[in-house]
This record gives sequence, structure tokens and C-alpha cells, in this order.
Amino acid sequence: MLYRKGHEPREIPVSHIARYVEPGEHLIWVGLKSPEPALIEQLGAQLGFSSKAIEEINEIHRRPRVVEYTGLTQIVAITVEVETMRPTFGETQIIIGKGFLVTVRRSAQATHTKLRELLENSPELLDRGSDYVASMLLDLMADRYVAASAKIESGVEAVEKKFLLRGFQDTDVRRVYQYRRDLLRIHVAISPLVEICRRLSRVESNNIDQNCRGYFGEVADRVQRVDELLNSLREALAFAFEASLMIGQSQQTDITKKLASWAAILAVPTAVAGIYGMNFKYMPELSWTFGYPLIMGLTAGACAILYWRFKKNRWL
Amino acid sequence: MLYRKGHEPREIPVSHIARYVEPGEHLIWVGLKSPEPALIEQLGAQLGFSSKAIEEINEIHRRPRVVEYTGLTQIVAITVEVETMRPTFGETQIIIGKGFLVTVRRSAQATHTKLRELLENSPELLDRGSDYVASMLLDLMADRYVAASAKIESGVEAVEKKFLLRGFQDTDVRRVYQYRRDLLRIHVAISPLVEICRRLSRVESNNIDQNCRGYFGEVADRVQRVDELLNSLREALAFAFEASLMIGQSQQTDITKKLASWAAILAVPTAVAGIYGMNFKYMPELSWTFGYPLIMGLTAGACAILYWRFKKNRWL
Amino acid sequence: MLYRKGHEPREIPVSHIARYVEPGEHLIWVGLKSPEPALIEQLGAQLGFSSKAIEEINEIHRRPRVVEYTGLTQIVAITVEVETMRPTFGETQIIIGKGFLVTVRRSAQATHTKLRELLENSPELLDRGSDYVASMLLDLMADRYVAASAKIESGVEAVEKKFLLRGFQDTDVRRVYQYRRDLLRIHVAISPLVEICRRLSRVESNNIDQNCRGYFGEVADRVQRVDELLNSLREALAFAFEASLMIGQSQQTDITKKLASWAAILAVPTAVAGIYGMNFKYMPELSWTFGYPLIMGLTAGACAILYWRFKKNRWL
Amino acid sequence: MLYRKGHEPREIPVSHIARYVEPGEHLIWVGLKSPEPALIEQLGAQLGFSSKAIEEINEIHRRPRVVEYTGLTQIVAITVEVETMRPTFGETQIIIGKGFLVTVRRSAQATHTKLRELLENSPELLDRGSDYVASMLLDLMADRYVAASAKIESGVEAVEKKFLLRGFQDTDVRRVYQYRRDLLRIHVAISPLVEICRRLSRVESNNIDQNCRGYFGEVADRVQRVDELLNSLREALAFAFEASLMIGQSQQTDITKKLASWAAILAVPTAVAGIYGMNFKYMPELSWTFGYPLIMGLTAGACAILYWRFKKNRWL
Amino acid sequence: MLYRKGHEPREIPVSHIARYVEPGEHLIWVGLKSPEPALIEQLGAQLGFSSKAIEEINEIHRRPRVVEYTGLTQIVAITVEVETMRPTFGETQIIIGKGFLVTVRRSAQATHTKLRELLENSPELLDRGSDYVASMLLDLMADRYVAASAKIESGVEAVEKKFLLRGFQDTDVRRVYQYRRDLLRIHVAISPLVEICRRLSRVESNNIDQNCRGYFGEVADRVQRVDELLNSLREALAFAFEASLMIGQSQQTDITKKLASWAAILAVPTAVAGIYGMNFKYMPELSWTFGYPLIMGLTAGACAILYWRFKKNRWL
Ligand SMILES: [Mg+2]
Ligand SMILES: [Mg+2]
Ligand SMILES: [Mg+2]
Ligand SMILES: [Mg+2]
Ligand SMILES: [Mg+2]
Ligand SMILES: [Mg+2]
Ligand SMILES: [Mg+2]
Ligand SMILES: [Mg+2]
Ligand SMILES: [Mg+2]
Ligand SMILES: [Mg+2]
Ligand SMILES: [Mg+2]
Ligand SMILES: [Mg+2]
Ligand SMILES: [Mg+2]
Ligand SMILES: [Mg+2]
Ligand SMILES: [Mg+2]
Ligand SMILES: [Mg+2]
Ligand SMILES: [Mg+2]
Ligand SMILES: [Mg+2]
Ligand SMILES: [Mg+2]
Ligand SMILES: [Mg+2]
Ligand SMILES: [Mg+2]
Ligand SMILES: [Mg+2]
Ligand SMILES: [Mg+2]
Ligand SMILES: [Mg+2]
Ligand SMILES: [Mg+2]
Ligand SMILES: [Mg+2]
Ligand SMILES: [Mg+2]
Ligand SMILES: [Mg+2]
Ligand SMILES: [Mg+2]
Ligand SMILES: [Mg+2]
Repeated sequence: MLYRKGHEPREIPVSHIARYVEPGEHLIWVGLKSPEPALIEQLGAQLGFSSKAIEEINEIHRRPRVVEYTGLTQIVAITVEVETMRPTFGETQIIIGKGFLVTVRRSAQATHTKLRELLENSPELLDRGSDYVASMLLDLMADRYVAASAKIESGVEAVEKKFLLRGFQDTDVRRVYQYRRDLLRIHVAISPLVEICRRLSRVESNNIDQNCRGYFGEVADRVQRVDELLNSLREALAFAFEASLMIGQSQQTDITKKLASWAAILAVPTAVAGIYGMNFKYMPELSWTFGYPLIMGLTAGACAILYWRFKKNRWL
Repeated sequence: MLYRKGHEPREIPVSHIARYVEPGEHLIWVGLKSPEPALIEQLGAQLGFSSKAIEEINEIHRRPRVVEYTGLTQIVAITVEVETMRPTFGETQIIIGKGFLVTVRRSAQATHTKLRELLENSPELLDRGSDYVASMLLDLMADRYVAASAKIESGVEAVEKKFLLRGFQDTDVRRVYQYRRDLLRIHVAISPLVEICRRLSRVESNNIDQNCRGYFGEVADRVQRVDELLNSLREALAFAFEASLMIGQSQQTDITKKLASWAAILAVPTAVAGIYGMNFKYMPELSWTFGYPLIMGLTAGACAILYWRFKKNRWL
Repeated sequence: MLYRKGHEPREIPVSHIARYVEPGEHLIWVGLKSPEPALIEQLGAQLGFSSKAIEEINEIHRRPRVVEYTGLTQIVAITVEVETMRPTFGETQIIIGKGFLVTVRRSAQATHTKLRELLENSPELLDRGSDYVASMLLDLMADRYVAASAKIESGVEAVEKKFLLRGFQDTDVRRVYQYRRDLLRIHVAISPLVEICRRLSRVESNNIDQNCRGYFGEVADRVQRVDELLNSLREALAFAFEASLMIGQSQQTDITKKLASWAAILAVPTAVAGIYGMNFKYMPELSWTFGYPLIMGLTAGACAILYWRFKKNRWL
Repeated sequence: MLYRKGHEPREIPVSHIARYVEPGEHLIWVGLKSPEPALIEQLGAQLGFSSKAIEEINEIHRRPRVVEYTGLTQIVAITVEVETMRPTFGETQIIIGKGFLVTVRRSAQATHTKLRELLENSPELLDRGSDYVASMLLDLMADRYVAASAKIESGVEAVEKKFLLRGFQDTDVRRVYQYRRDLLRIHVAISPLVEICRRLSRVESNNIDQNCRGYFGEVADRVQRVDELLNSLREALAFAFEASLMIGQSQQTDITKKLASWAAILAVPTAVAGIYGMNFKYMPELSWTFGYPLIMGLTAGACAILYWRFKKNRWL
Repeated sequence: MLYRKGHEPREIPVSHIARYVEPGEHLIWVGLKSPEPALIEQLGAQLGFSSKAIEEINEIHRRPRVVEYTGLTQIVAITVEVETMRPTFGETQIIIGKGFLVTVRRSAQATHTKLRELLENSPELLDRGSDYVASMLLDLMADRYVAASAKIESGVEAVEKKFLLRGFQDTDVRRVYQYRRDLLRIHVAISPLVEICRRLSRVESNNIDQNCRGYFGEVADRVQRVDELLNSLREALAFAFEASLMIGQSQQTDITKKLASWAAILAVPTAVAGIYGMNFKYMPELSWTFGYPLIMGLTAGACAILYWRFKKNRWL
């Protein structure tokens, strides 16, 4: 679970780390996954972490932060993975020190194997120190944000296409709601990282060399662009909502108008029939030989005229 | 109610404070809770506050501010506590001077006991002076903002889950309204603190040392992140509103359509029955032996056709 | 109507002002209320104003501005007073020069008496010059903005409480509209002052000393906070609007559903009665002894079933 | 159509301009209105314009811009004039060079006559050079923006008053739409000028002296304030829209409720009459002597009870 | 497909490029359209690209970016072309090095022919180096954005005119939705270029000379203005939506009111006819000689009164 990197990578036990810390000569990378608090304490004792730092590393975080301790810089990033169109969040801590790098992953599926292989094959990168490797890790994370946002983008566009073809139904509204909410959750989870990387790229930090700051600035730019894309997607979903509301309303208007128009047309024979159903003794029309067909014909004519006028006014 | 801190903490009476003020040697921390104006005046006389400063300390504030007087810096912060899902606001004043620190709490439940214990156990922190302790107090306040926002976040998510399962009712709308309003109130109460801490971290102040400014900058960052989370929650509630409006409207459309369709179907037998209820002398159908079942059958057929068409068009 | 301030305040006539102008020694404060153009010209001649400055002073302004002339700085601020819940706007001009201060008020009720008394009692403040007094005048104005915004805040909260208790009516909507519009008017009237004071606190001006700039910066902060509070209130009214729309709509839905459901239930006996009102010769049911109570009973049963189903579906 | 200004203004032909260009001594102002391309080319040859500059001057612009050429600075501003409540847009180009100033107006009604007279009467202003005159021209333009925005403001307030008195009708909605659209068009036309003037006031330019930059900064401030006023007006129209929507909806609710309630009341006698219109042989009530008045009375009573209940529930 | 530019342009094969690279003397411009990866690798070997740069050039991009490698600066821009009112997106990469310029176009229709001809005719421009030519390419791209936005603007205005003349129909809503979505897509595609060009104009880059930075700043300004225009168009479409919703709703209100009013009027004769259709033995009115015309007349009168009242209240 832990590696040492000099001329050739070698695993070393936690209890011997202290004697290998030699900035400039070696780079020790300790990769931990959901570690026990005891392990962190043992590691902290070896690398000289303060008790406050150990406590902070053992905490579970839900938002990015950066804390500067004497001898180490702790960066907390939130990983986002999108599977079956719902995001799951994890935590990756990167602890940068002189001569060592500790990474702590919690509930994050993705591993750093690819980066590790790259580093093992190009030892000149390792010479640049733990701050450089940290910036590469954050860049890898930005890659994953881009991948996650691309998945969500395709999901949003599928929803939009469906909507444009045949409007929204009740369940679609719930799904759009879920998308918008998830986009907001991802925004909250990644947007502070922009500011954090921006600061690391500008402000003097003991554990980050000047020639490494530019890399953090590039990560800041990339995360910011992902964040802006997510905002645009949220805006697009808001568009879809509005348009859907409007189309739904105009369809309702249309059906309501049609049914109300038919009701108006049918009300005419009902009223006429009611009148000639009255039991007055003296109703001359009732005894006419052709009263029935005459009245029926007149009523049908009135209905036809109404039908024609409603059709003309586009009420029907 | 008041402590003196040097090598070992000791309580001293207000009337003797003046002789213990020795910046670099001692740190006097006066912790007051809803103090009488007379007490503030007595204290001010001891510590050399101007009359304008005493007046300002005795006032009750509803928004954060910072005022620079000669010899003291007054920071007003608003505390937020969330109980039974409603926020209650309090006021905490922190007065920073050379060699002393005065805190004034009004309607704020939370105490500084934990911080005091921490300070008593690590005297090296006290050596850093009143500005450092003030930044720790503000950090503690940011912790409470985070706790309060976490409570409200869970409340918002409960409301959202309920909404997604079975839509909003009248009382839910009122509750969502309350949440949004409370989030806005908290935003108004804490957001100026961001700017205030940012300024303290940048601008030269007589009572805040240069090596202490970074801590105020960190508080600014943390409060800003809480504020951004609160904004996201407000936006999420706005989502819920909109989606709820839309689902409600589409359900209304649906029920209205169904009832109107049934009304249209029932209007047919009513009109037919009306016609054969007319009292014309010469209505040949009336005297047919099978007139009644025939007409009834035709009417039922017409209704069936309408039912089938409405079903096909999803109006029913 | 005009004062001279040195060791003891004394009134001097406008025509003799010129000989008392002695920066560092005297401070002349000319307080004018809706002055005649002729008076301004006389005063300008005494104090050496350019003709363009005199013209500008005689104009009525509706938005804040600042203009730099040689020998004087003209600050235009808009006063806001809230009475009977409607804001009234006035204009206060502050003309700062070396050794003199001219204030011109138009349609502004509030006076500067309190400030003048304070100045007369603490002559050391006057030694700081006309720029310092100007900053105190602007601070006084910010106090009044705070007072006005507190009044409007209480009005907004009264409207909100009423709304949450029993919803909005037509007249309430008009009142909410008025509030939102007034808040926007106040925002337009005071927000440029933020930028103006910020600039006076940063940029070199001939008539404002470097040690005075901080005071203008504090006024900028205070006005900005009032402006942000007003924005929040506007947002709160927008919440109230939306929520009201939604509650109104859900109540409408409810009543409409209930009435439509009752109409559907009543349509059943009407259709049945219509059928047995037909005049066919051969309708066997009509001659059954218990036909009438049987049919009535069946119809009542159908209605009861509909009632029960609608009740279950919450349509009734 | 062209003037030379030194000790006394004199008209000179285009073909002789070149020999009068003497920065510091003379100021040549060429005022052109919708000039032919050939004229611009002739002028450009005299003043040494590059071919790209001549091409750019001959183009028609719809948005402000500033281009820096060697020897000249071209400022494009969009003029806005409001007549009969609709804005018309024009283009004014200001070309600043050492010793000369060229203005090109296209479809702009307003002239620079007033400014020219002012300049002719105060020769000391001319000594400040073409950059100073350019800033005065832009200030004049800002005056016109203020005048245009005041006209639109009064129009918006008239619409609002009408709306508050008796709500919106269909044609009003169209007019409000036009206003909002026009405000957006003006915003697009003038807002880039803010940034342009801000840059001219900050950045070194060959053709603008350092002591002249402040004037461009003041123009930037004024245009920005006009732009903010226009934004507020747009927001006010959005308010009016929303409020109108809500009042309209609540009135609809009201009328719909009333008509549906009356329909429910009338449905009772219709159903009862239908029942006693049935032709059953054995219906005992029909032969009662007082059956008719009794049933009519009961029905009327039921209607009265419904009326009273609906009135109590405010459905009627 | 490739050119060399010195005193006279000449085509050279890819395999000989390396020997012509002589910054200050020659400028090599390699223009590639959808190149094979193998070609890029061959070119990269000649010009000394790192393997990471070659990989990046072979990737397809959907958002602008800028990457700094040793010896080259890669700018990725997204081209936008609007045909038949729908935007199509392409990718243009500009690789700036000392003495060479590589452009890679993918799915972009527009060519750089016009710029190439301009450069061939004015060799002094080529002397300014590859960074200058790159800024001209980006300026050309900004020209195309302006052209694309002008096309969309005319489309939006056509939609608006249609809407103001006769309101929206279902298909229009879909088209407006498409426009808004496309505007958002273009915004996402071009807005990062603003920040990228701004940075190139400010920050030191090995491959961009100081005297060239201003040109990138101008491109940033132009793209930003296009982006702001697109935002305004989106806002205008949002206006159209809202207004359309409102007009649609007010028309619905109107028709609904009219139909409901007519239904109320027709309900009166139906109820009256029902009453006199009852079969009570003792109904004195039935045997009156003029009962029929009297009752009919009274009913007609009641209908006329209702008609007149509804007309007066504008319900009809
Ligand atoms: Mg952000
Ligand atoms: Mg954030
Ligand atoms: Mg961002
Ligand atoms: Mg956007
Ligand atoms: Mg949104
Ligand atoms: Mg605030
Ligand atoms: Mg804020
Ligand atoms: Mg603030
Ligand atoms: Mg923020
Ligand atoms: Mg913001
Ligand atoms: Mg947000
Ligand atoms: Mg909101
Ligand atoms: Mg403003
Ligand atoms: Mg503001
Ligand atoms: Mg402003
Ligand atoms: Mg703002
Ligand atoms: Mg803002
Ligand atoms: Mg706010
Ligand atoms: Mg608002
Ligand atoms: Mg704009
Ligand atoms: Mg712009
Ligand atoms: Mg701009
Ligand atoms: Mg602006
Ligand atoms: Mg505004
Ligand atoms: Mg708007
Ligand atoms: Mg964007
Ligand atoms: Mg942008
Ligand atoms: Mg961007
Ligand atoms: Mg805009
Ligand atoms: Mg929009």
C-alpha cells in the first residue's frame, strides 16, 4: 500500500518511513484508501505531523479546503463520478511535504494507478518534487470532472431531445429536477477548488515551489471551465422547464377551448329540447304536423353555424 | 466573569484591570454576556476607551461591522444558531487591543468555554496576542455557521425528498417559503463578515499584527464558502418551487381534461333524452316498438366511440 | 443661516465671507436650504467659484455625483426619508474647499443641527478641516439610510406575515408592487454613492487630505451594506410573490376540482332523469310498480360510489 | 463644413488641411456628416491616415469601439435619441490626432454646434488639444444619454401608473415588451463605451495626454450610471409584468370561481326538475295537491343554502 | 498544403521543414486540415514537439484552451458558423513557435486564404513573427463570430416581429427554445477565449513577444463584446417567452370567460324548461292560455339582463 521512489520504486513499511525522508533525493508517496485513524497517527508520528493535522486528516470532508500546517500543506478535493446518470461523491486528500506526498481516498472509486505508472516510467518527473506530483493529481481529478460533466451533458441533451419531440410528462419533470439538483451539488462540490488552486498558484507557500505554481493555475482554469459548463447545463435545463411549461399550457388552452366549444354547441339542442318538453297546454308548435322535423332542423342549423364560427376563430 | 491569562489564568475584578495591561507579558480576556451599560463604562475607563467606542459597544447590532478606534478594533459578528429548523440570531462583539481582548455576547447561546480551555492548556497560543485569539474566536464562529448550514441543508433535503415522493401541499409551500426567507436572513447576517475579514487580512491595522492577518483571511474564505452553500440551498429551494408548480399544473391539466371529457360523454345521452322527451304530437320514433332500446343502443354506441377516441388522444 | 467656526461660532453675512477664509485657522460652514440662484452667485463670487461650478450647484439633481473643480469638490448625495411607508427623496450638496464648507439642501426634511451642535462642543474636530466635516455629514446620511431601510424592512416583514397567515389579495399585490418599486428607486438613488465614496477614499483630490480618506471608505462600506439589505428585501418580496402565486394556484386547483367533481356527480341523476322523461310508448320500466324508487335508488348508489371514489383520490 | 481654430476660427478647404497641422499652435476640427468615401480618402491623404484606418472610418458601426492606429485614435460611439418613445440609433466617430480632430456623424440628428460655440468663445480650452475636445464631445454624448434615459423613464412610469390603476391589456403587454426590448438595445449600444472610456483613462495612448485622462474617466462614470438606470428600468418593467400576471390570474380565479359556483347552484333545480319530469306511472309526489309548490320550495331552499355557504367561503 | 514565407512564399515538403526554421529570418506557416496523426508526428519530429504536445494536437477539442509547452504555445479556439440559422462548431488550433506557425482546422469550413494573401502582399507583417500572425488569425475568428452573431440577431428579430404581430404557436416555442439553446452553446464555445486572450495579453509567455500582447488584448475585447451581444439576445428571447406566456394567458382568460358566461346564460332557459317539463298534476301555470309565451318571454328577459350585465363587466 506504500511506495518509495528514488531510482527504482520500492515498498517500505510505515514504521520505517521516517528514515527515508530526504528531500531532493527521495520522494515518498503514501497512498491510503479509507485508512484507520491509528494508521494515520503512526504515519503522522513518522513524518512529524502536528496533532491538529492528524485530527483534520482523519475527518471526513464534504467540501474542498486547503490548510497550511508547518511542514505540510493539506489539500482536500471532492471527487465526482457519474454512473447510471447520478453523481457519487468521494474525498481525496493530498498532503504535500518536503520529500513526501500522502494521498488519502475515501469512497472514491478511481485510483491513481495510471499516474503512478507514468511517474515510474519517467523518473525525471519525480525529481520535481511532491508539489509537482500533487498538481498532476489535481489535473487528473480535473480530467475526471471533465469526463463526469461530459456524461451529464449527454444526459441533459437526451432529455432535451425527448422534450422537443413530445413534451414533458410528470416523471420527466422529476428527472429534470434531479439533474438540476445534481448539477448544483457538483457545482458546490467542485467550485471552491477553483479558488483554492488559484491561491496556491499565487500565494507563497512553504511546501510549493515557485516554479510549480503555474501548474496549479492551470488546474484552476480547467476546473473553472468545467464549472461554467455545468452552470450552462443548469441554465439549459431551466430553459427546458420554461418551454415545457409554456407548451403544456398552450396545449391545455387548446383542449380546454375545444371541449368548452363542444359543450356550448351541445347546450343548444339541450335547451331547445327542454323547451319543447314543457307540459303547457297551449303550445301551438307541438301540434304542427312537421313541428318535430322543423325544430330539429333549425336546431341542427344553429349548431352548424356555431361550429363554423368556432372553427373560423380557431376555438375548435 | 473575567479572566487574566499569563502563566496561570486568574480572575481579577474589573476595577483592577488597568494595572495588569502589559502587552507582550499578559493577555487579559474579559468575557461579558449581555452586560449593563455601567459595566462597559467602568471597563472602558480602565482600558482607556473613547466615549464614542463605549457608546458603540453598548449598542445592539443586527449586521456585522468593524470599527477602528485609537487603541482598539471593534469587530461585530452575528451568531446564527439553528434549533427546531428556525435560525435565531445573536451578537458577538470582539474588541481587540494591545494586551487585552473584550468579548461581548448578546442573545447568543454558545459559549467560548471550549476555546478558553484550549488556550489555558496551550499557553504558547496566548503569547501570540489578542489579535490571534480574536481570529480563533471568529474561526469558532465559522464552525458554528458550518454546523448551522449543515442543519438547514438536511432540512432542505428532507423537504426535497418529500416533494419528489408526493408533491407539495399548501403547508409545504409555506414551509419552503420560511426556509428561503431564513436562508436570505442568514445570508444578510453573515455575508458582510466575508468582506470585513478580507479587509482585516489585507489592510494595516494598529491592533492586528502582520503575522496574524493570514488567519483572518482563512476565516473570510470559510464564511464565504458557507455563504455560497446557503445560496445554493436557496437556489435548490427555488428549483423545488418551480418543479412543484409544474407538476401541480400538469396534474391539474390532467384532472381537468378527464372531468371535461366525461362531461362531454355524458352530454350526449342528456341531449338525446331531452329530444325524445319533447311533447310533439308527431314523432314517429316514439311509437316504434323497439324505439327505446334502439335509441338507447345508438346513444351508448356514440358514448363508446367518444370514450375510445378520448382514450386514444390521452384526454381521458 | 450661516456660521463661522473658529474658537467660538459666529454668524457672518454672506457679503463678508471672503475675508474670513483662512484655511487652518478658520472653518466657514455655509448651510443653505433651497437657496435662490442669486444667493449662490453672490456666495460663489466671495469664495471664487467658477461659473460652471455655480451653474452646477444651482441645478437640481436626482442621482449622486461628484465633480472636481479647481478649488472645490462638489458631492451630490440623495437623501431618502420614509414616512407612511413611502420614500421621499431630497438632494444634499456638499461643497468642500480649503477653509470652507457649503451645504445645499433641497426638499430634504432632516437638518444637520445635531452634527453642528456636536462640532460646536468639540472644537478639535473642526481643526481637522472641511473634508472631515464632509465625511461626517455623509456618515450622518448613511445613518438616515439605515433608519429608512429599517422602516421599510419592518413594512416588508408585516406584509410577509400577513401573506403567510392568509395569502395575498388584489390590493396586497399592488402594495407589494409599490414596495418593490420603491426599493428599486432607493437603490438607484443611493448605490452610486458607494462608488463615489470609494473613489474619494482612494484617489488623490486637492481638497481632501490623505488622513481623511479612510472616513470616506467607511461611508462607502456602510452605504453598500444598506444597499445589499435593500436588495435582499427586494428578493424577499419576489419570494413572497412567487409563493403567493403558487398558493393561489393550488387553492384554485382545489376549488376547481371540487366544483367539477360535484358537477360530474350531479350529471348522473340529470342524465338518468332525462332518459326516463322520454315519451317512448314502449318503455317497460315506466310501468313497474317500484320502477321509480328502484331507479332513484340505483342512481343514488351510483352517485355515492362516485363520491367515495373522488373522496379517495382527493378530487373532492 | 470644416473649421480651423487658432486665434480666430476660419474655414479652410480640405485640400489645404495638411499645411495647417501644427500641434500646439493650431487645432483643426473637421466635422463631417455622412461623408462620401472619396472625401474621407482625400482627408486621410492630407492627414496621413493609413489605408486600414480610412477603410475603418468608411464602415458603418453598430457598436462602440476604439482602435489605436499610428498617429490617430479612432473612437466609435453610438448616439441614442428618443422620439415618440422609440429610440433611434446613430453613429459618431471621433478621430483624435496630434493637432487635429475629425468627427464623423451618421444618422445622428444632434449637432455639435453648442460645443463649437463654447470653444470659439473660450480659446483657452482649445489650447488643451484635440484629446480634451474629444472628451468634451463624449461628455456631450453622455448628456444626451441622460436626456434619452429620462424620457424613457417617464414613459415607463406612465405605463406603471396605468397598470396600477387598471391592470394591463393585450396592447399594453406589447408596449411593455417594446420598452424592455428597446432598453436592452440601448444597453447593448452604450455599455461598451464604459469600458472604452475607462481604458482611455488608464492606459497610455500616444494621442491622449496624461492630464486629459481624468476626463475620460468621468465620462465612463456617467455612462455607467445611465446604464445602471436603464437596467433598473428594465427590472421595473419586469416587476410590472409579474405583478400584472398575478393580478390577472387572481381576477381570472375569481370570475371562474363565481361562474362555477352559479353553475353548481343552477344544477340543483335542473336535476330536481329532470327527476319530476320522468314518466313513471307510480310517482306518488306527482299527484299531491301541493307537490309542485312543496318541491319548488325545497329546491329554492337548497339553492339558498348553497348560495349562503358559497358566499361564506368567498367562492361567490 | 504547406508554405514557407521569406522574401517570396514557397511550398516545402514536411520532411524538410527542420532546416528552414530560422527565427527572425524565415516564417514557416503549416496549414493543416483534419490531419492524420502520423502527419502530426512527422511534423512534430521536425519542429521538436514533445510527445505530450503531439498527443494534445491530435485530440479533438470542444472548448477553447491554451497550453504552454517548452518551445510552443498551443491555442485551441472553437469556430462558429451559422447556416440555415443553426450553428455548426469546428476546431482551430494555432501552434505558435519561434520561427514557425502551425494551424490545424477540424470541421471548420472557413479558410485562412484571405489572411494568407494579405500576408503575402505585405511582407513587413511577416517580419513581426508567428505570434503576430496568430493574433491576426484570432482577429479573423472574432470577425466570424461577429458575422455569426449578426445572422442570429436577425433571426431573433424575425421571431420577435412575428410574435408581436400574432403571438406564438407551439412550433414557434420550439424554435425559440432552439435559438436560446444555440445561443447558450455558442456562449459556452467562445466565452473561455476571452479569458485566454486576456491572459496572453498580460502574462509573460516565451513564444509571444511583449509588443504583440496588445493585439491579443484587442481580440479579447472583441470576443467579449460578441459574447455580451449573445447574452442580450438570450435575454431578449426570454422577454419574448414571458410576454408570449402572458398574452396567451390573457387570451385564454378571455375565451374561457366568454364561454363560461354563455353557458351561464343558456343554463337559465334549460332550468326553466326543466321545471315546466315536470309531470305534477297541479301546476296552475300549465293550463293558462298565455302561460307558454309569458314564461318564454320572462326567460328571454332574464337572459337579456344577464347578457347586458356580463357585457358591462367585460366578461363577455
Ligand atoms: Mg463559484
Ligand atoms: Mg462554492
Ligand atoms: Mg466560475
Ligand atoms: Mg451562462
Ligand atoms: Mg438555475
Ligand atoms: Mg450582505
Ligand atoms: Mg455576498
Ligand atoms: Mg458587504
Ligand atoms: Mg462569493
Ligand atoms: Mg454575485
Ligand atoms: Mg451556486
Ligand atoms: Mg433565489
Ligand atoms: Mg445605481
Ligand atoms: Mg451594489
Ligand atoms: Mg455606480
Ligand atoms: Mg450586486
Ligand atoms: Mg451580486
Ligand atoms: Mg442577496
Ligand atoms: Mg428582484
Ligand atoms: Mg452589454
Ligand atoms: Mg459590452
Ligand atoms: Mg464590456
Ligand atoms: Mg454596468
Ligand atoms: Mg439595479
Ligand atoms: Mg430583465
Ligand atoms: Mg460560460
Ligand atoms: Mg464572458
Ligand atoms: Mg471562461
Ligand atoms: Mg445584458
Ligand atoms: Mg436566460
